Amino acid sequence: MKILKEADLRHLMALDLDVVNTIEGAFLALATLPVAMPDILRLDIADRGEVDVKTAYVPGIESFAIKISPGFFGNPALGLPSLNGLMVLLSARTGLTEALLLDNGYLTDLRTAAAGGVAARWLSRPDSRIAAIYGAGVQARLQLQALTLVRPIECARIWARRPEQAQETAAWCATRFGIPVVAVDDPAVAAEGADILVTTTPATQPVLRRDWLQPGQHVTAMGSDAEHKNELDPRIVADAAPYVADTLAQTRRLGELRRALADGLVPADRPLHELGAIIAGHQPGRVEAGAITVADLTGTGIQDTAIATLAYRRAVTAGP
Amino acid sequence: MKILKEADLRHLMALDLDVVNTIEGAFLALATLPVAMPDILRLDIADRGEVDVKTAYVPGIESFAIKISPGFFGNPALGLPSLNGLMVLLSARTGLTEALLLDNGYLTDLRTAAAGGVAARWLSRPDSRIAAIYGAGVQARLQLQALTLVRPIECARIWARRPEQAQETAAWCATRFGIPVVAVDDPAVAAEGADILVTTTPATQPVLRRDWLQPGQHVTAMGSDAEHKNELDPRIVADAAPYVADTLAQTRRLGELRRALADGLVPADRPLHELGAIIAGHQPGRVEAGAITVADLTGTGIQDTAIATLAYRRAVTAGP
Repeated sequence: MKILKEADLRHLMALDLDVVNTIEGAFLALATLPVAMPDILRLDIADRGEVDVKTAYVPGIESFAIKISPGFFGNPALGLPSLNGLMVLLSARTGLTEALLLDNGYLTDLRTAAAGGVAARWLSRPDSRIAAIYGAGVQARLQLQALTLVRPIECARIWARRPEQAQETAAWCATRFGIPVVAVDDPAVAAEGADILVTTTPATQPVLRRDWLQPGQHVTAMGSDAEHKNELDPRIVADAAPYVADTLAQTRRLGELRRALADGLVPADRPLHELGAIIAGHQPGRVEAGAITVADLTGTGIQDTAIATLAYRRAVTAGP
Repeated sequence: MKILKEADLRHLMALDLDVVNTIEGAFLALATLPVAMPDILRLDIADRGEVDVKTAYVPGIESFAIKISPGFFGNPALGLPSLNGLMVLLSARTGLTEALLLDNGYLTDLRTAAAGGVAARWLSRPDSRIAAIYGAGVQARLQLQALTLVRPIECARIWARRPEQAQETAAWCATRFGIPVVAVDDPAVAAEGADILVTTTPATQPVLRRDWLQPGQHVTAMGSDAEHKNELDPRIVADAAPYVADTLAQTRRLGELRRALADGLVPADRPLHELGAIIAGHQPGRVEAGAITVADLTGTGIQDTAIATLAYRRAVTAGP
């Protein structure tokens, strides 16, 4: 059994096209193979935090991950990270533990950003050049990086609730990706003329309004993973063509779709799309250049299984 | 973060009164404190096996376990154990991983047997001297050992589907516990005159019949943990006074109670008991010496949290 620490995993794994393609393959499998993906197990620790456990078995992937993600909101006051976690990788043939991936959430960061790359590849216009990122955390940086892997991104804007964070992140991204990245104070200005917009915040009220959007834009919302979170004006979800979930079973409960349904803006019987079905060609992606497309990403166990298996394979290849 | 292997855990932990009392405390907490115990997460690996994930947070216990239990039925043909698994222990204050307990199911074996000891302590007659064990696996040995910790057991009988296994287990127990233990070929004969009967089999049809039982006996059934399993004639469950679940939420679905309800032998509105409520004094245990009492044990996350925390504490005390 291999034990890989965060430093090992950072050495083995970065956000690259191989990671994006691996995550794309997992979504394709979800749409075309008998994947087993149980509901998220959630344990609430009274007044302190929660732990989510995600898992999925994907036929054709020889291992499966069980991911443990704690979130304890009092940790920063104790000088500790509020999010951490690990993955346990088991053989899909024998159930034996193959590896412990003590990643502190690093692999989750990668697979989450990779899904943003997959969504942009299938939904944004191929000539997308301008990115607008909402939020200034780790995912802001990684989501922008993912866009640069799949689209000819030439410049980017960053908006965040705290302007100094937006500036810091913009400077970091400009250096890292070698393109102009500016912090903007007005979220409407960030949206104007952008080809791809990605929201990466823990917001509980929309950070992106419908009337800021223009024809031809693609929006990926990846911040909401709980019943109380909401990044998009629900009219954006209602008007999207198409609206695309990572998995509808989760976005109905935890994603942007939840509020759009609750507000009655999306009728319960409207046919909705999933990313895997679009990759498989079962459903159309972007049909016209002037459409506004939306990807609603809540994070799935198939992504964990796919990235954990990739990390393990690379570790085995690299040797001890 | 401590990593404890099976050999370390076998060195630190044995089935003793401390373990039984720890598990008793967990059941007491379940009845008296705001315990968080989500439904078991179950992942099915097509045609090969399954993985169960259990967890629980118990106020007052400073850590909580997430237990991963794979069961792959083709493993024996590959020369591998069909059951294995591990526990991840997290701090209930910060969510940080405190320990990985690579126990291959050893701690599960202990906490399962300890629950049998707790059930016998609260439901069997204090003068119980004769034990009858159904099954000849690891739990047959451990359940008998647990009985010897809480009752003045003087002798035991073992029945198993395969007589040679019953003989082997009887010989092992006789040597280990220093009491006469005999293998019997007839399961009715094993029951006759026994004070405590424990079923430890993976049976899908009853191994114990109602008309073999006599007044004053206590029965613990611990083999059923899935919808298709069944060890007790459902009339035993119907006639028990009282019938006691580890947790009714699970025994209704997975335990002996399931079939008794399905067969209509236990009306859906009959008030039923739980082990923790009896320990807390909220419900009566054995009311008369002549009653037949039944404990239906399916295995709970609180037991995992309790034993994993005990193992970790002992490891910390023992030092590196």
